[in-house]
Amino acid sequence: MARWEPNARERLVRAAIDLFAEQGYDATTVNEIAERAGGLTKTTFFRHFSDKREVLYAGQELHGRIVSDAIGGAPDSATPLQMVASAVDELAAVFTEDRREMAGKLRKVIAESAELQERAAFKRAALVGAMTAALRERRVPELVAELAAELGTRAFYGAFGRWAVAEDPRTLVEHARQAFGELRAAMSELE
Amino acid sequence: MARWEPNARERLVRAAIDLFAEQGYDATTVNEIAERAGGLTKTTFFRHFSDKREVLYAGQELHGRIVSDAIGGAPDSATPLQMVASAVDELAAVFTEDRREMAGKLRKVIAESAELQERAAFKRAALVGAMTAALRERRVPELVAELAAELGTRAFYGAFGRWAVAEDPRTLVEHARQAFGELRAAMSELE
Repeated sequence: MARWEPNARERLVRAAIDLFAEQGYDATTVNEIAERAGGLTKTTFFRHFSDKREVLYAGQELHGRIVSDAIGGAPDSATPLQMVASAVDELAAVFTEDRREMAGKLRKVIAESAELQERAAFKRAALVGAMTAALRERRVPELVAELAAELGTRAFYGAFGRWAVAEDPRTLVEHARQAFGELRAAMSELE
Repeated sequence: MARWEPNARERLVRAAIDLFAEQGYDATTVNEIAERAGGLTKTTFFRHFSDKREVLYAGQELHGRIVSDAIGGAPDSATPLQMVASAVDELAAVFTEDRREMAGKLRKVIAESAELQERAAFKRAALVGAMTAALRERRVPELVAELAAELGTRAFYGAFGRWAVAEDPRTLVEHARQAFGELRAAMSELE
């Protein structure tokens, strides 16, 4: 009979990132991840994730919902970029200080694996897709929606990269707002 | 002894896309692809491609070089967006009318496979990366370079999608120029 394992999902994610960082992604087995997560079993692992790789992309659906909800709830007076900025704010707020160390490890693990980079690019595209769909619902023209979503995602990832590696007391939300401002400035230098 | 197989690479790509379109990507074997390519062997296949999937991404390096060369050769007076527009022109010119039917089939094959979509997202990111690196060489500030590269890649892929599926006499270069113009217009509606 399956035991109830408190917080198993979160424990598995943390164990996986630790092991991947210590001994490499390829060398780590599902059994090791389950064991490191405080004596869980392979069966428990597969109740939560379809395979070893998906542990790293656990948040994809949740993140999509967060940005959709934020864009759906933005005031009617908001411009497309303002809608996206609110979505990035909400998403960034998920990554509290206690997740920063894991984020830094995760980035290194992904940087060392072509397979994980592919999957990461797909996750990024899914985030752009979620924002675009939500903007479309707000009757933003398709191409404007796509661009705004791309810019928002770019601000988020740029900020995430700085937040994850730096000894900098600012929150991810603060980094994201700064990244957004820098992107706006860069847009004015395109031609 | 290995025979010289004229144009084997191109024949393998076309055979693979035909088979993937007819019977699905998963169901197709390397042996079938080699056979369909006019009686080539598995050995010949693996001289050209590391696996079944890579047949579809054969152009990645070449495309990167094309955009790099175009940006490197743009006049000093060109703005970042103008440099990228010339890169997109050069890249689009590679896709002559005789490749349109294959391009349409390829899009359908990719649309039906999550694995191929991941790989496609990675190829797209590689194109952005190649343009960004070339713009950096031209001393375009990093963030401006990234944005310009993203916009150029977006124009190219948007145009490619229309060109590949439509009965429209315009060339990919013409589609790409139109897509570029539309993107510029959309940028002005962001806020």
